[in-house]
Amino acid sequence: MIVRDLAKEILTERRVDSDGWSSVRLLLKDDRMGFSFHITTIHAGAELHMHYKNHLESVFCMEGTGSITDIATGETHTIRPGVMYALNKNDKHILRADAGAPMMMACVFNPPVTGKEVHGADGAYPADAALENSA
Amino acid sequence: MIVRDLAKEILTERRVDSDGWSSVRLLLKDDRMGFSFHITTIHAGAELHMHYKNHLESVFCMEGTGSITDIATGETHTIRPGVMYALNKNDKHILRADAGAPMMMACVFNPPVTGKEVHGADGAYPADAALENSA
Repeated sequence: MIVRDLAKEILTERRVDSDGWSSVRLLLKDDRMGFSFHITTIHAGAELHMHYKNHLESVFCMEGTGSITDIATGETHTIRPGVMYALNKNDKHILRADAGAPMMMACVFNPPVTGKEVHGADGAYPADAALENSA
Repeated sequence: MIVRDLAKEILTERRVDSDGWSSVRLLLKDDRMGFSFHITTIHAGAELHMHYKNHLESVFCMEGTGSITDIATGETHTIRPGVMYALNKNDKHILRADAGAPMMMACVFNPPVTGKEVHGADGAYPADAALENSA
């Protein structure tokens, strides 16, 4: 059994900070669960253009409000606590947090993130490989 | 892209109620994400003896407090918001919610739950098969 506490792990290398978001990876590939599990904070007012070409991701909103736009369909969905979206088609999307407060999200990635990826210029994590900070 | 709202899905067949807990399955096997994602409420004061022999599960506590005992080691861990446990060894365990308030948990199962399983007398979900309510 693995037991981890967000309050502690946020102070370790499991925490990654990027432009507009930060994330604490509570489970990574080497935990051998077959998925990774991240608690991700989207900064208030952030607008993130993302495209995970190599991963399926589900995102459950625990705190905060915002929206997600599905680039393929042009549809925009409101995000608030209790709303989940799943990028079952590796959907290219824009995620926005409303001004005033961050959004806190529980995220699942399949295949699991290794922890060594960085978002490329194309908004994707690379496919799993022995990557160091390559972008 | 799949978008689902807990406030709506709690009124559908995605919600299952059992002794000491209820769960809303926001993602199931047929969503083809490779995992299932459930928001599960553990009733205040409940003590649940569980053993998922056929699934790995991670559980992130969003609300409430309680404890989990790992039967193999005898260790008991406190659960409060921000604590995650992962049953990476199909760990037999006892989950308790403190009296006074329920615990609300974000749960991931691999392989994904189909939605047709019920907990057997042994505290497990059966392996994936064309099961109807068999226990």
